Amino acid sequence: MLSIPVSNIKTHLTVLEKIGNLGSFREAGFLRASWSDEESAAMAYVRDVGAEHGLRTKYDGVGNLYLSTPGSGDQVVQVGSHVDTVPFGGNYDGAAGILAGLEAILAVRKSWPIFSKRLELVIWRGEESATFGSVCKGSRAAFGVNDRNILLRKFDGRTLEQAIIGQGFDPSFIAECRPALEQAHIDSIAAYFELHIEQARRLEIERKEIGITTSIRGTIRTRFVVTGEAAHSGGTPMGVDYRRDANLAIATMQVEMEKLGQQRLAEGADLVQTVGVLNSDRDYNVQNPAVHENAITKVSPYGYFTTDVRSNNVSFLEAHMAEIETLFGQIAERLNVLLSVQRLMFLDPIAEMDPTLQGVLVEACQESSASHIKMPSGALHDAAVVAIHPRGDGTFIPTALLFIPCRDGISHNAREYATPDAIRIGAEVLAVALQSMAS
Amino acid sequence: MLSIPVSNIKTHLTVLEKIGNLGSFREAGFLRASWSDEESAAMAYVRDVGAEHGLRTKYDGVGNLYLSTPGSGDQVVQVGSHVDTVPFGGNYDGAAGILAGLEAILAVRKSWPIFSKRLELVIWRGEESATFGSVCKGSRAAFGVNDRNILLRKFDGRTLEQAIIGQGFDPSFIAECRPALEQAHIDSIAAYFELHIEQARRLEIERKEIGITTSIRGTIRTRFVVTGEAAHSGGTPMGVDYRRDANLAIATMQVEMEKLGQQRLAEGADLVQTVGVLNSDRDYNVQNPAVHENAITKVSPYGYFTTDVRSNNVSFLEAHMAEIETLFGQIAERLNVLLSVQRLMFLDPIAEMDPTLQGVLVEACQESSASHIKMPSGALHDAAVVAIHPRGDGTFIPTALLFIPCRDGISHNAREYATPDAIRIGAEVLAVALQSMAS
Repeated sequence: MLSIPVSNIKTHLTVLEKIGNLGSFREAGFLRASWSDEESAAMAYVRDVGAEHGLRTKYDGVGNLYLSTPGSGDQVVQVGSHVDTVPFGGNYDGAAGILAGLEAILAVRKSWPIFSKRLELVIWRGEESATFGSVCKGSRAAFGVNDRNILLRKFDGRTLEQAIIGQGFDPSFIAECRPALEQAHIDSIAAYFELHIEQARRLEIERKEIGITTSIRGTIRTRFVVTGEAAHSGGTPMGVDYRRDANLAIATMQVEMEKLGQQRLAEGADLVQTVGVLNSDRDYNVQNPAVHENAITKVSPYGYFTTDVRSNNVSFLEAHMAEIETLFGQIAERLNVLLSVQRLMFLDPIAEMDPTLQGVLVEACQESSASHIKMPSGALHDAAVVAIHPRGDGTFIPTALLFIPCRDGISHNAREYATPDAIRIGAEVLAVALQSMAS
Repeated sequence: MLSIPVSNIKTHLTVLEKIGNLGSFREAGFLRASWSDEESAAMAYVRDVGAEHGLRTKYDGVGNLYLSTPGSGDQVVQVGSHVDTVPFGGNYDGAAGILAGLEAILAVRKSWPIFSKRLELVIWRGEESATFGSVCKGSRAAFGVNDRNILLRKFDGRTLEQAIIGQGFDPSFIAECRPALEQAHIDSIAAYFELHIEQARRLEIERKEIGITTSIRGTIRTRFVVTGEAAHSGGTPMGVDYRRDANLAIATMQVEMEKLGQQRLAEGADLVQTVGVLNSDRDYNVQNPAVHENAITKVSPYGYFTTDVRSNNVSFLEAHMAEIETLFGQIAERLNVLLSVQRLMFLDPIAEMDPTLQGVLVEACQESSASHIKMPSGALHDAAVVAIHPRGDGTFIPTALLFIPCRDGISHNAREYATPDAIRIGAEVLAVALQSMAS
């Protein structure tokens, strides 16, 4: 049975904890922005460890990093993730997957010479949308599928274009939608694995060590703006003949959306839906200060909220969202308020992760004695980008995504934490799976 | 039939429109803060017009102004209101009542010598809580019933104490809770009338010229703070086993509170209840930035809302508020969130305005051919202060409050507007009522 020393994981974590740390201890949070010195430094650490153990290193045109086992095999089995963080994020979202992948590859190094396929660790740049407002920027650039406009988006006073140039790479791949990774390299990818912290509490609550994802949910994100009419709270009788109450309309929409969602869940749909922002987006409020006209003694004239509706079934997702919008329209009419609908984002789901790789992971869990469940992924990761972009022959890259628990499900937060042991277990499962796929 | 030229009203409005106007036209809004130069200037204008027509002028210790008809009668029939405004307020909330009262008294000046009681116009200082955070400060000071702590509250960089001294008056009345109006003067008040814009749309919707208030609703104002737990919106299954969703709890509370309120209304209760602020109080958010941690892709960890619950029946009001809090507590438990309850204000209702004066106003409306309805007042006014503070012999001052329509029910807003004709009709009704009471 493969065994990885937890001390290796701890050593790496200790080094990474010093890169982009916003204070002098882990709980101060991190910022390793996309194409920042900190992101590059974290990548360089992993590169140097890999090189020391004989991995060959390569950057693509935009600076994604590939660490490959030596050998002449035509095909590679990749394991990837990212090391950038959101502002005040943690040291695990992304980095846990890189450390697990690194240790998994090194754990099987005695077998490298006999593998028919090479192994490759990929560190994608800029996965987090929190810096430069776009998600999976590095992996998308590798496949040549970014929106070129993201180059103009700013973070910390610089455009993404400036940030990429600043790290010594070439933004024209994004500007021209050319793959930053050579087509031959793309075509050589036989399988792609990614390990990530769950960012939710299901594994923790169900006391499982590994989540094998069966699908990645797509998402439709929408802002609903409700306009009512200000009125004196003491003098204006209750009821729709007198009041056009934005707050009451918003509450009614939320409650009826929840009912509808629970009904669809009971019917067996894959669905999560969330009202995340309720009048509380600081930047939006600076631009749209109308929300501050609400007062204790006023019937509410204005409010807004966002919905994030996700499913792994795209036709259900679209139909359900349409049903929600119809429902909201009816409520708005009934309560005599105006409703405006702003679509913020649409991402297709991955309806089914590669079944063969799911099977490989189940076997790897069994071999490693790691408890596991199968579950949909609610979050998008670089794996979703890899999964949907065909190789030159039109076939898709078999892709797998596995989760390890993180404490209280917290991520994108300085309190984010995964135990070194949870990462070790993930790395061992990965090692078995890589070995199986490379043989 | 008594007739007041609408041109008089227009003339006064034109003068007042220049005092405290925040721009060069009415729609720019006004600021005549409590004990400001602007409030004093508006009072001085009315004082001078009154004096010109033979009214005797007097300020009490804190600067409330009394304009009395000459004569030696022991008793006075008062008509009062205020001229201060909220920031960016209008020229009608308060001022309409003063202009109507002034014109009403002047309209019957031929009868002054034959009245058995004198008439008196009262301009109370600082009715609006928007400046210095306390309501009806002048009228309360007249009766010696302010909380002394309000002297330390600031507006525009100065304490209320400094503002009072700045206008040449004596804050020690408030500091020591001594009536700023002599007891003999208080004891001489035979009746008190107040005209105010409705600040709601009932008169407008029901097409009536005068609202005769039957009661003044008391209010209980509360802030409810809900704490849930942040979680990833994509990865966290729906339902209370996984989510502690503050937004959903808040929405459920609102909807169930509305249901409960509608039920009590159907049972005949006098009730208005409003959720005014929903995560949207700018100052509170600066102090408590937790609300900004909500995000589109997070189950909501935190939120708050305010309730303003009013009724003219104090025992119902208290019981209903207790029922709401119990309901909210049950919802919080069911949805696994924490609920904190912050009582912001309690004001007793005036269960019944003086029935005799209500009758006098009904007759005055009939004599003036003014259409009218009887209605509760949802808003507090100086009349509420006058009504609940006994004279020296323990009896209460008979008090009446009448409303005129204001456009779209809008007040505390630069768009506040009442037609000069609506004010004229109110003044004519007042004149008949004053005449009747003074004879």
